[in-house]
Amino acid sequence: MKIEFITSKDNALFKEIRQLQATGPKGQKARFACGQALLEGIHLVQTWVGDPALQFLITSEIGLQNPEIAQAVYDHVEICPETRVYQLDKGLWDLLSDLVNAPHIAGLLNLPQSALAPQQSVATLDGDVVILDRIQDAGNVGTILRTAAAAGFTQVVALTGCAHLWSSKVLRAGMGAHRLLDLYEGWSTQQVLSAVTAPLLAAIADGELELFNMRKELIHPVAWVMGSEGHGVSTDLMAQAKSVSIPIDPRVESLNVSTAAAVCLFETLRVRRA
Amino acid sequence: MKIEFITSKDNALFKEIRQLQATGPKGQKARFACGQALLEGIHLVQTWVGDPALQFLITSEIGLQNPEIAQAVYDHVEICPETRVYQLDKGLWDLLSDLVNAPHIAGLLNLPQSALAPQQSVATLDGDVVILDRIQDAGNVGTILRTAAAAGFTQVVALTGCAHLWSSKVLRAGMGAHRLLDLYEGWSTQQVLSAVTAPLLAAIADGELELFNMRKELIHPVAWVMGSEGHGVSTDLMAQAKSVSIPIDPRVESLNVSTAAAVCLFETLRVRRA
Repeated sequence: MKIEFITSKDNALFKEIRQLQATGPKGQKARFACGQALLEGIHLVQTWVGDPALQFLITSEIGLQNPEIAQAVYDHVEICPETRVYQLDKGLWDLLSDLVNAPHIAGLLNLPQSALAPQQSVATLDGDVVILDRIQDAGNVGTILRTAAAAGFTQVVALTGCAHLWSSKVLRAGMGAHRLLDLYEGWSTQQVLSAVTAPLLAAIADGELELFNMRKELIHPVAWVMGSEGHGVSTDLMAQAKSVSIPIDPRVESLNVSTAAAVCLFETLRVRRA
Repeated sequence: MKIEFITSKDNALFKEIRQLQATGPKGQKARFACGQALLEGIHLVQTWVGDPALQFLITSEIGLQNPEIAQAVYDHVEICPETRVYQLDKGLWDLLSDLVNAPHIAGLLNLPQSALAPQQSVATLDGDVVILDRIQDAGNVGTILRTAAAAGFTQVVALTGCAHLWSSKVLRAGMGAHRLLDLYEGWSTQQVLSAVTAPLLAAIADGELELFNMRKELIHPVAWVMGSEGHGVSTDLMAQAKSVSIPIDPRVESLNVSTAAAVCLFETLRVRRA
Protein backbone atom coordinates (compact mmCIF):
# COMPACT_ATOMS: atom_id res chain seq x y z
CA MET A 1 0.00 0.00 0.00
CA LYS A 2 1.43 3.31 -1.09
CA ILE A 3 1.02 6.18 1.36
CA GLU A 4 1.40 9.81 0.32
CA PHE A 5 2.44 12.34 2.93
CA ILE A 6 0.98 15.79 3.50
CA THR A 7 3.18 18.01 5.63
CA SER A 8 2.04 21.53 4.81
CA LYS A 9 -1.21 23.34 5.30
CA ASP A 10 -0.69 24.83 1.85
CA ASN A 11 -1.08 21.42 0.25
CA ALA A 12 -3.90 21.63 -2.31
CA LEU A 13 -5.71 18.53 -1.05
CA PHE A 14 -5.47 19.68 2.56
CA LYS A 15 -6.97 23.04 1.59
CA GLU A 16 -9.76 21.27 -0.29
CA ILE A 17 -10.58 19.09 2.72
CA ARG A 18 -10.90 22.12 4.94
CA GLN A 19 -13.24 23.77 2.45
CA LEU A 20 -15.41 20.65 2.38
CA GLN A 21 -15.83 20.88 6.14
CA ALA A 22 -17.46 24.30 6.00
CA THR A 23 -21.11 24.39 6.90
CA GLY A 24 -23.60 26.53 5.01
CA PRO A 25 -23.47 27.59 1.35
CA LYS A 26 -19.65 27.84 1.34
CA GLY A 27 -19.22 24.16 2.10
CA GLN A 28 -21.95 23.20 -0.32
CA LYS A 29 -20.23 25.19 -3.10
CA ALA A 30 -16.92 23.45 -2.33
CA ARG A 31 -18.57 20.03 -2.45
CA PHE A 32 -20.16 20.79 -5.82
CA ALA A 33 -16.88 22.19 -7.17
CA CYS A 34 -14.89 19.03 -6.50
CA GLY A 35 -17.79 16.58 -6.57
CA GLN A 36 -16.85 15.13 -3.21
CA ALA A 37 -17.99 15.04 0.40
CA LEU A 38 -15.94 14.49 3.52
CA LEU A 39 -16.53 11.43 5.70
CA GLU A 40 -15.20 12.05 9.20
CA GLY A 41 -14.53 9.23 11.63
CA ILE A 42 -14.15 5.50 11.60
CA HIS A 43 -17.85 4.64 11.53
CA LEU A 44 -18.55 6.56 8.32
CA VAL A 45 -15.40 5.31 6.62
CA GLN A 46 -16.25 1.70 7.54
CA THR A 47 -19.70 2.19 6.02
CA TRP A 48 -18.17 2.89 2.63
CA VAL A 49 -15.29 0.35 2.78
CA GLY A 50 -15.21 -1.51 -0.54
CA ASP A 51 -17.20 1.16 -2.40
CA PRO A 52 -15.17 2.68 -5.27
CA ALA A 53 -16.87 6.02 -4.59
CA LEU A 54 -14.57 6.27 -1.58
CA GLN A 55 -11.51 7.46 -3.52
CA PHE A 56 -9.30 9.04 -0.88
CA LEU A 57 -8.48 8.03 2.67
CA ILE A 58 -6.85 10.51 5.04
CA THR A 59 -5.20 9.44 8.26
CA SER A 60 -2.15 10.15 10.42
CA GLU A 61 0.66 8.19 12.03
CA ILE A 62 -1.42 7.92 15.20
CA GLY A 63 -4.42 6.86 13.12
CA LEU A 64 -2.56 3.97 11.48
CA GLN A 65 -1.54 2.67 14.92
CA ASN A 66 -5.24 2.15 15.71
CA PRO A 67 -6.06 -1.43 14.65
CA GLU A 68 -9.62 -0.57 13.61
CA ILE A 69 -8.43 2.24 11.34
CA ALA A 70 -5.57 0.21 9.90
CA GLN A 71 -8.00 -2.63 9.13
CA ALA A 72 -10.49 -0.32 7.40
CA VAL A 73 -7.72 1.25 5.28
CA TYR A 74 -6.26 -2.17 4.40
CA ASP A 75 -9.64 -3.70 3.54
CA HIS A 76 -10.67 -0.77 1.38
CA VAL A 77 -7.40 -0.60 -0.55
CA GLU A 78 -7.50 -4.35 -1.16
CA ILE A 79 -10.95 -4.09 -2.78
CA CYS A 80 -10.36 -0.69 -4.41
CA PRO A 81 -6.64 -0.54 -5.27
CA GLU A 82 -7.06 2.84 -7.00
CA THR A 83 -7.69 4.47 -3.62
CA ARG A 84 -5.18 7.11 -2.62
CA VAL A 85 -4.09 7.02 1.02
CA TYR A 86 -2.73 10.16 2.64
CA GLN A 87 -0.97 10.57 5.95
CA LEU A 88 -1.19 13.99 7.59
CA ASP A 89 1.31 15.36 10.05
CA LYS A 90 -0.18 15.39 13.53
CA GLY A 91 -0.25 19.19 13.57
CA LEU A 92 -2.26 19.21 10.36
CA TRP A 93 -4.70 16.67 11.71
CA ASP A 94 -5.35 18.88 14.72
CA LEU A 95 -6.11 21.78 12.36
CA LEU A 96 -8.59 19.59 10.53
CA SER A 97 -10.64 18.02 13.22
CA ASP A 98 -13.10 19.82 15.43
CA LEU A 99 -13.58 16.56 17.34
CA VAL A 100 -10.77 16.48 19.88
CA ASN A 101 -10.73 12.79 20.72
CA ALA A 102 -11.98 11.49 17.39
CA PRO A 103 -9.92 8.77 15.69
CA HIS A 104 -7.61 10.06 12.94
CA ILE A 105 -9.43 8.85 9.86
CA ALA A 106 -11.45 10.54 7.14
CA GLY A 107 -12.38 9.85 3.57
CA LEU A 108 -13.37 11.72 0.46
CA LEU A 109 -16.44 10.29 -1.19
CA ASN A 110 -17.49 10.96 -4.77
CA LEU A 111 -20.95 12.47 -4.64
CA PRO A 112 -23.64 10.46 -6.41
CA GLN A 113 -25.08 11.92 -9.63
CA SER A 114 -28.30 12.92 -7.88
CA ALA A 115 -26.32 15.07 -5.44
CA LEU A 116 -24.45 16.82 -8.25
CA ALA A 117 -27.64 17.86 -10.05
CA PRO A 118 -29.71 18.65 -7.00
CA GLN A 119 -32.57 20.55 -8.59
CA GLN A 120 -33.10 17.79 -11.12
CA SER A 121 -36.49 16.30 -10.58
CA VAL A 122 -37.77 12.85 -11.30
CA ALA A 123 -41.04 12.51 -13.19
CA THR A 124 -42.62 10.21 -10.63
CA LEU A 125 -41.64 9.26 -7.11
CA ASP A 126 -43.78 6.31 -6.05
CA GLY A 127 -43.91 4.71 -2.62
CA ASP A 128 -43.07 6.06 0.81
CA VAL A 129 -41.22 9.36 0.98
CA VAL A 130 -39.95 11.59 3.75
CA ILE A 131 -40.00 15.28 2.79
CA LEU A 132 -37.88 17.77 4.72
CA ASP A 133 -39.18 21.33 4.52
CA ARG A 134 -36.47 23.90 5.33
CA ILE A 135 -34.91 22.00 8.23
CA GLN A 136 -31.70 23.93 8.78
CA ASP A 137 -30.15 22.16 11.73
CA ALA A 138 -27.66 19.67 10.30
CA GLY A 139 -27.91 17.43 13.37
CA ASN A 140 -31.67 17.17 12.98
CA VAL A 141 -31.40 16.48 9.24
CA GLY A 142 -28.79 13.74 9.74
CA THR A 143 -30.73 12.17 12.60
CA ILE A 144 -33.87 12.07 10.44
CA LEU A 145 -31.94 10.35 7.63
CA ARG A 146 -30.69 7.74 10.12
CA THR A 147 -34.22 7.24 11.46
CA ALA A 148 -35.69 7.00 7.95
CA ALA A 149 -33.23 4.29 6.93
CA ALA A 150 -33.87 2.40 10.17
CA ALA A 151 -37.65 2.55 9.69
CA GLY A 152 -37.38 1.41 6.05
CA PHE A 153 -38.22 4.74 4.43
CA THR A 154 -35.64 4.79 1.65
CA GLN A 155 -36.63 7.93 -0.27
CA VAL A 156 -35.97 11.35 1.21
CA VAL A 157 -36.60 14.68 -0.51
CA ALA A 158 -35.03 17.83 0.95
CA LEU A 159 -36.65 21.06 -0.20
CA THR A 160 -34.61 24.19 -0.89
CA GLY A 161 -33.65 25.71 2.45
CA CYS A 162 -32.63 22.49 4.19
CA ALA A 163 -29.08 21.91 5.40
CA HIS A 164 -26.97 20.35 2.64
CA LEU A 165 -27.50 16.59 2.90
CA TRP A 166 -23.82 15.94 2.13
CA SER A 167 -22.31 18.31 4.68
CA SER A 168 -19.92 16.73 7.16
CA LYS A 169 -22.28 17.35 10.04
CA VAL A 170 -25.30 15.79 8.33
CA LEU A 171 -23.15 12.83 7.26
CA ARG A 172 -21.92 12.38 10.84
CA ALA A 173 -25.42 12.48 12.35
CA GLY A 174 -26.63 10.19 9.55
CA MET A 175 -24.17 7.50 10.69
CA GLY A 176 -24.02 5.90 7.23
CA ALA A 177 -27.72 6.18 6.35
CA HIS A 178 -26.80 8.11 3.18
CA ARG A 179 -25.57 4.87 1.66
CA LEU A 180 -28.97 3.22 2.08
CA LEU A 181 -31.15 6.08 0.89
CA ASP A 182 -32.29 7.62 -2.38
CA LEU A 183 -31.77 11.29 -1.69
CA TYR A 184 -33.34 14.16 -3.64
CA GLU A 185 -32.25 17.65 -2.84
CA GLY A 186 -33.01 21.28 -3.62
CA TRP A 187 -36.56 20.56 -4.81
CA SER A 188 -39.28 23.17 -4.95
CA THR A 189 -42.72 22.59 -3.50
CA GLN A 190 -43.99 22.35 -7.08
CA GLN A 191 -41.58 19.52 -7.87
CA VAL A 192 -42.80 17.63 -4.81
CA LEU A 193 -46.43 18.09 -5.75
CA SER A 194 -45.91 16.87 -9.31
CA ALA A 195 -43.60 13.90 -8.58
CA VAL A 196 -44.71 12.39 -5.28
CA THR A 197 -47.66 10.04 -5.75
CA ALA A 198 -48.37 9.07 -2.12
CA PRO A 199 -50.70 11.28 -0.07
CA LEU A 200 -48.92 13.99 1.90
CA LEU A 201 -49.13 13.83 5.69
CA ALA A 202 -47.81 16.89 7.51
CA ALA A 203 -46.82 16.51 11.15
CA ILE A 204 -47.94 19.68 12.94
CA ALA A 205 -49.06 20.72 16.41
CA ASP A 206 -52.82 20.93 15.77
CA GLY A 207 -53.59 18.37 13.11
CA GLU A 208 -56.95 17.18 11.83
CA LEU A 209 -55.89 13.56 12.42
CA GLU A 210 -54.27 12.02 15.48
CA LEU A 211 -51.30 9.82 14.73
CA PHE A 212 -52.39 6.94 16.93
CA ASN A 213 -55.82 6.63 15.25
CA MET A 214 -54.54 6.34 11.69
CA ARG A 215 -54.35 2.67 10.79
CA LYS A 216 -56.05 2.99 7.41
CA GLU A 217 -54.08 6.05 6.26
CA LEU A 218 -50.75 4.42 7.10
CA ILE A 219 -51.22 1.00 5.48
CA HIS A 220 -50.54 2.36 1.99
CA PRO A 221 -47.54 4.45 0.89
CA VAL A 222 -47.34 7.85 2.55
CA ALA A 223 -45.27 11.00 2.13
CA TRP A 224 -44.44 12.36 5.59
CA VAL A 225 -43.69 16.09 5.52
CA MET A 226 -41.55 17.39 8.40
CA GLY A 227 -41.31 21.16 8.71
CA SER A 228 -38.64 23.29 10.33
CA GLU A 229 -39.14 24.14 13.99
CA GLY A 230 -39.08 27.83 13.28
CA HIS A 231 -41.38 27.91 10.26
CA GLY A 232 -43.33 24.66 10.28
CA VAL A 233 -44.59 23.25 7.00
CA SER A 234 -44.98 25.78 4.15
CA THR A 235 -48.48 26.97 3.25
CA ASP A 236 -48.26 25.52 -0.26
CA LEU A 237 -47.49 22.03 0.99
CA MET A 238 -50.01 22.28 3.83
CA ALA A 239 -52.73 23.09 1.30
CA GLN A 240 -52.20 19.68 -0.31
CA ALA A 241 -51.55 17.66 2.87
CA LYS A 242 -53.55 16.06 5.62
CA SER A 243 -52.33 17.40 8.95
CA VAL A 244 -51.44 14.95 11.69
CA SER A 245 -50.59 15.53 15.33
CA ILE A 246 -48.77 13.49 17.87
CA PRO A 247 -50.67 13.68 21.17
CA ILE A 248 -48.44 15.49 23.66
CA ASP A 249 -48.83 17.07 27.09
CA PRO A 250 -50.50 20.44 26.40
CA ARG A 251 -47.91 22.25 28.54
CA VAL A 252 -45.20 21.22 26.04
CA GLU A 253 -45.23 23.41 22.95
CA SER A 254 -43.83 20.93 20.47
CA LEU A 255 -41.44 18.07 19.88
CA ASN A 256 -38.01 18.39 18.32
CA VAL A 257 -38.46 17.76 14.58
CA SER A 258 -36.25 14.66 14.56
CA THR A 259 -38.22 13.29 17.52
CA ALA A 260 -41.51 13.94 15.73
CA ALA A 261 -40.17 12.24 12.60
CA ALA A 262 -39.15 9.18 14.63
CA VAL A 263 -42.57 8.84 16.22
CA CYS A 264 -44.39 9.21 12.86
CA LEU A 265 -42.14 6.87 10.86
CA PHE A 266 -42.07 4.13 13.50
CA GLU A 267 -45.84 4.34 14.01
CA THR A 268 -46.17 3.78 10.25
CA LEU A 269 -43.87 0.77 10.52
CA ARG A 270 -45.80 -0.58 13.52
CA VAL A 271 -49.18 -0.30 11.79
CA ARG A 272 -47.90 -2.19 8.76
CA ARG A 273 -46.40 -4.98 10.83
CA ALA A 274 -49.52 -5.40 12.99
CA MET B 1 -38.41 48.99 36.45
CA LYS B 2 -34.86 49.59 37.56
CA ILE B 3 -32.15 48.49 35.13
CA GLU B 4 -28.54 47.97 36.18
CA PHE B 5 -25.82 48.38 33.57
CA ILE B 6 -22.84 46.11 33.00
CA THR B 7 -20.13 47.71 30.90
CA SER B 8 -17.00 45.73 31.71
CA LYS B 9 -16.05 42.14 31.19
CA ASP B 10 -14.47 42.27 34.65
CA ASN B 11 -17.89 42.72 36.26
CA ALA B 12 -18.40 39.94 38.79
CA LEU B 13 -21.84 38.93 37.52
CA PHE B 14 -20.65 38.88 33.92
CA LYS B 15 -17.77 36.60 34.88
CA GLU B 16 -20.17 34.34 36.75
CA ILE B 17 -22.48 34.09 33.74
CA ARG B 18 -19.59 33.04 31.52
CA GLN B 19 -18.59 30.35 34.01
CA LEU B 20 -22.15 29.00 34.06
CA GLN B 21 -22.00 28.58 30.29
CA ALA B 22 -19.09 26.15 30.43
CA THR B 23 -19.88 22.59 29.50
CA GLY B 24 -18.43 19.65 31.40
CA PRO B 25 -17.38 19.51 35.06
CA LYS B 26 -16.20 23.14 35.08
CA GLY B 27 -19.66 24.48 34.31
CA GLN B 28 -21.28 22.03 36.72
CA LYS B 29 -18.96 23.20 39.51
CA ALA B 30 -19.81 26.85 38.76
CA ARG B 31 -23.54 26.07 38.85
CA PHE B 32 -23.21 24.34 42.22
CA ALA B 33 -21.06 27.17 43.59
CA CYS B 34 -23.63 29.88 42.92
CA GLY B 35 -26.72 27.67 42.99
CA GLN B 36 -27.88 28.94 39.63
CA ALA B 37 -28.23 27.89 36.02
CA LEU B 38 -28.24 30.04 32.89
CA LEU B 39 -31.35 30.21 30.70
CA GLU B 40 -30.38 31.37 27.21
CA GLY B 41 -32.95 32.73 24.78
CA ILE B 42 -36.48 34.01 24.80
CA HIS B 43 -38.21 30.62 24.84
CA LEU B 44 -36.54 29.47 28.06
CA VAL B 45 -36.99 32.82 29.77
CA GLN B 46 -40.69 32.87 28.82
CA THR B 47 -41.07 29.39 30.33
CA TRP B 48 -40.03 30.68 33.74
CA VAL B 49 -41.79 34.10 33.60
CA GLY B 50 -43.59 34.60 36.91
CA ASP B 51 -41.50 32.01 38.76
CA PRO B 52 -39.55 33.60 41.65
CA ALA B 53 -36.71 31.14 40.96
CA LEU B 54 -35.89 33.34 37.96
CA GLN B 55 -34.01 36.00 39.94
CA PHE B 56 -31.91 37.79 37.32
CA LEU B 57 -32.68 38.84 33.76
CA ILE B 58 -29.86 39.82 31.43
CA THR B 59 -30.49 41.68 28.19
CA SER B 60 -29.04 44.50 26.05
CA GLU B 61 -30.25 47.70 24.46
CA ILE B 62 -31.01 45.76 21.27
CA GLY B 63 -32.78 43.11 23.35
CA LEU B 64 -35.13 45.60 24.98
CA GLN B 65 -36.13 46.93 21.55
CA ASN B 66 -37.54 43.49 20.75
CA PRO B 67 -41.23 43.55 21.79
CA GLU B 68 -41.25 39.88 22.80
CA ILE B 69 -38.24 40.34 25.08
CA ALA B 70 -39.53 43.61 26.53
CA GLN B 71 -42.87 41.93 27.27
CA ALA B 72 -41.25 38.95 29.01
CA VAL B 73 -39.07 41.24 31.14
CA TYR B 74 -42.01 43.48 32.01
CA ASP B 75 -44.33 40.57 32.86
CA HIS B 76 -41.75 38.85 35.02
CA VAL B 77 -40.80 41.97 36.96
CA GLU B 78 -44.46 42.78 37.56
CA ILE B 79 -45.07 39.37 39.19
CA CYS B 80 -41.63 39.09 40.81
CA PRO B 81 -40.59 42.67 41.70
CA GLU B 82 -37.42 41.43 43.43
CA THR B 83 -35.97 40.43 40.05
CA ARG B 84 -32.78 42.24 39.07
CA VAL B 85 -32.60 43.33 35.45
CA TYR B 86 -29.20 43.90 33.83
CA GLN B 87 -28.37 45.51 30.53
CA LEU B 88 -25.09 44.46 28.90
CA ASP B 89 -23.13 46.57 26.46
CA LYS B 90 -23.47 45.13 22.97
CA GLY B 91 -19.80 44.13 22.93
CA LEU B 92 -20.27 42.15 26.13
CA TRP B 93 -23.34 40.42 24.76
CA ASP B 94 -21.35 39.28 21.76
CA LEU B 95 -18.72 37.82 24.12
CA LEU B 96 -21.46 35.94 25.92
CA SER B 97 -23.46 34.35 23.20
CA ASP B 98 -22.30 31.56 20.97
CA LEU B 99 -25.58 31.92 19.07
CA VAL B 100 -24.98 34.68 16.53
CA ASN B 101 -28.56 35.61 15.72
CA ALA B 102 -30.12 34.69 19.03
CA PRO B 103 -32.25 37.34 20.75
CA HIS B 104 -30.45 39.22 23.51
CA ILE B 105 -32.10 37.73 26.57
CA ALA B 106 -30.96 35.36 29.28
CA GLY B 107 -31.88 34.61 32.86
CA LEU B 108 -30.31 33.18 35.97
CA LEU B 109 -32.46 30.54 37.60
CA ASN B 110 -32.09 29.35 41.18
CA LEU B 111 -31.48 25.61 41.02
CA PRO B 112 -34.09 23.49 42.77
CA GLN B 113 -33.05 21.72 45.99
CA SER B 114 -32.87 18.36 44.21
CA ALA B 115 -30.27 19.77 41.79
CA LEU B 116 -28.15 21.14 44.62
CA ALA B 117 -27.94 17.78 46.41
CA PRO B 118 -27.66 15.60 43.35
CA GLN B 119 -26.53 12.37 44.94
CA GLN B 120 -29.35 12.50 47.43
CA SER B 121 -31.62 9.59 46.88
CA VAL B 122 -35.29 9.19 47.58
CA ALA B 123 -36.43 6.11 49.43
CA THR B 124 -39.02 5.14 46.86
CA LEU B 125 -39.69 6.33 43.34
CA ASP B 126 -43.06 4.98 42.25
CA GLY B 127 -44.61 5.27 38.81
CA ASP B 128 -43.07 5.78 35.38
CA VAL B 129 -39.42 6.76 35.26
CA VAL B 130 -36.92 7.48 32.50
CA ILE B 131 -33.37 6.51 33.48
CA LEU B 132 -30.41 7.97 31.59
CA ASP B 133 -27.28 5.84 31.79
CA ARG B 134 -24.12 7.83 31.01
CA ILE B 135 -25.56 9.85 28.12
CA GLN B 136 -22.90 12.47 27.59
CA ASP B 137 -24.22 14.43 24.64
CA ALA B 138 -26.04 17.45 26.08
CA GLY B 139 -28.24 17.78 23.00
CA ASN B 140 -29.43 14.19 23.36
CA VAL B 141 -30.05 14.59 27.11
CA GLY B 142 -32.06 17.80 26.61
CA THR B 143 -34.04 16.32 23.73
CA ILE B 144 -34.93 13.29 25.86
CA LEU B 145 -36.13 15.57 28.68
CA ARG B 146 -38.34 17.42 26.18
CA THR B 147 -39.69 14.14 24.82
CA ALA B 148 -40.30 12.74 28.32
CA ALA B 149 -42.33 15.79 29.34
CA ALA B 150 -44.28 15.65 26.07
CA ALA B 151 -45.08 11.96 26.53
CA GLY B 152 -46.15 12.44 30.16
CA PHE B 153 -43.12 10.83 31.80
CA THR B 154 -42.49 13.31 34.59
CA GLN B 155 -39.70 11.56 36.53
CA VAL B 156 -36.21 11.38 35.07
CA VAL B 157 -33.14 9.93 36.79
CA ALA B 158 -29.69 10.71 35.36
CA LEU B 159 -26.96 8.33 36.51
CA THR B 160 -23.43 9.55 37.24
CA GLY B 161 -21.70 10.10 33.90
CA CYS B 162 -24.55 11.91 32.16
CA ALA B 163 -24.25 15.49 30.95
CA HIS B 164 -25.25 17.90 33.74
CA LEU B 165 -29.03 18.31 33.45
CA TRP B 166 -28.77 22.03 34.25
CA SER B 167 -26.07 22.92 31.72
CA SER B 168 -27.02 25.66 29.25
CA LYS B 169 -26.98 23.22 26.35
CA VAL B 170 -29.24 20.66 28.06
CA LEU B 171 -31.59 23.47 29.11
CA ARG B 172 -31.70 24.80 25.53
CA ALA B 173 -32.45 21.39 24.01
CA GLY B 174 -34.98 20.75 26.80
CA MET B 175 -36.98 23.81 25.67
CA GLY B 176 -38.52 24.32 29.11
CA ALA B 177 -39.16 20.66 29.96
CA HIS B 178 -37.09 21.07 33.14
CA ARG B 179 -39.94 23.05 34.66
CA LEU B 180 -42.37 20.16 34.21
CA LEU B 181 -40.14 17.32 35.40
CA ASP B 182 -38.96 15.83 38.66
CA LEU B 183 -35.25 15.44 37.98
CA TYR B 184 -32.87 13.20 39.96
CA GLU B 185 -29.20 13.41 39.15
CA GLY B 186 -25.88 11.78 39.94
CA TRP B 187 -27.47 8.52 41.13
CA SER B 188 -25.59 5.24 41.26
CA THR B 189 -26.98 2.05 39.79
CA GLN B 190 -27.55 0.85 43.36
CA GLN B 191 -29.71 3.88 44.15
CA VAL B 192 -31.83 3.18 41.06
CA LEU B 193 -32.26 -0.46 41.98
CA SER B 194 -33.34 0.32 45.54
CA ALA B 195 -35.65 3.30 44.82
CA VAL B 196 -37.38 2.60 41.50
CA THR B 197 -40.38 0.31 41.94
CA ALA B 198 -41.47 -0.12 38.30
CA PRO B 199 -39.88 -2.91 36.25
CA LEU B 200 -36.80 -1.82 34.30
CA LEU B 201 -36.98 -1.96 30.51
CA ALA B 202 -33.68 -1.42 28.71
CA ALA B 203 -33.78 -0.33 25.08
CA ILE B 204 -30.95 -2.19 23.29
CA ALA B 205 -30.20 -3.50 19.81
CA ASP B 206 -30.93 -7.22 20.42
CA GLY B 207 -33.61 -7.36 23.07
CA GLU B 208 -35.59 -10.33 24.31
CA LEU B 209 -38.83 -8.39 23.74
CA GLU B 210 -39.91 -6.44 20.68
CA LEU B 211 -41.33 -3.02 21.44
CA PHE B 212 -44.36 -3.38 19.21
CA ASN B 213 -45.50 -6.64 20.86
CA MET B 214 -45.51 -5.35 24.43
CA ARG B 215 -49.03 -4.27 25.29
CA LYS B 216 -49.19 -6.00 28.67
CA GLU B 217 -45.73 -4.86 29.85
CA LEU B 218 -46.50 -1.22 29.02
CA ILE B 219 -49.93 -0.86 30.63
CA HIS B 220 -48.48 -0.56 34.14
CA PRO B 221 -45.71 1.83 35.27
CA VAL B 222 -42.36 1.20 33.63
CA ALA B 223 -38.81 2.43 34.07
CA TRP B 224 -37.27 2.94 30.64
CA VAL B 225 -33.45 2.76 30.72
CA MET B 226 -31.65 4.53 27.88
CA GLY B 227 -27.93 3.83 27.56
CA SER B 228 -25.20 5.92 25.99
CA GLU B 229 -24.46 5.28 22.31
CA GLY B 230 -20.88 4.38 23.06
CA HIS B 231 -21.40 2.13 26.07
CA GLY B 232 -25.03 1.05 26.01
CA VAL B 233 -26.72 0.14 29.27
CA SER B 234 -24.39 -0.87 32.13
CA THR B 235 -24.09 -4.56 33.02
CA ASP B 236 -25.46 -4.01 36.53
CA LEU B 237 -28.64 -2.40 35.25
CA MET B 238 -29.01 -4.89 32.40
CA ALA B 239 -28.90 -7.74 34.91
CA GLN B 240 -32.10 -6.41 36.51
CA ALA B 241 -33.87 -5.28 33.34
CA LYS B 242 -35.90 -6.80 30.55
CA SER B 243 -34.27 -5.91 27.25
CA VAL B 244 -36.41 -4.43 24.50
CA SER B 245 -35.61 -3.72 20.87
CA ILE B 246 -37.14 -1.44 18.34
CA PRO B 247 -37.39 -3.31 15.01
CA ILE B 248 -35.05 -1.58 12.56
CA ASP B 249 -33.59 -2.33 9.14
CA PRO B 250 -30.75 -4.78 9.83
CA ARG B 251 -28.33 -2.69 7.73
CA VAL B 252 -28.69 0.16 10.23
CA GLU B 253 -26.59 -0.41 13.33
CA SER B 254 -28.68 1.53 15.81
CA LEU B 255 -30.87 4.55 16.40
CA ASN B 256 -29.73 7.77 17.99
CA VAL B 257 -30.51 7.47 21.72
CA SER B 258 -32.95 10.37 21.72
CA THR B 259 -34.74 8.82 18.76
CA ALA B 260 -34.94 5.46 20.53
CA ALA B 261 -36.29 7.14 23.67
CA ALA B 262 -38.97 8.90 21.62
CA VAL B 263 -40.13 5.67 20.00
CA CYS B 264 -40.24 3.80 23.35
CA LEU B 265 -41.97 6.55 25.34
CA PHE B 266 -44.60 7.30 22.70
CA GLU B 267 -45.30 3.60 22.16
CA THR B 268 -45.96 3.39 25.91
CA LEU B 269 -48.32 6.36 25.65
CA ARG B 270 -50.07 4.83 22.62
CA VAL B 271 -50.65 1.47 24.32
CA ARG B 272 -52.17 3.16 27.35
CA ARG B 273 -54.52 5.30 25.27
CA ALA B 274 -55.67 2.39 23.08
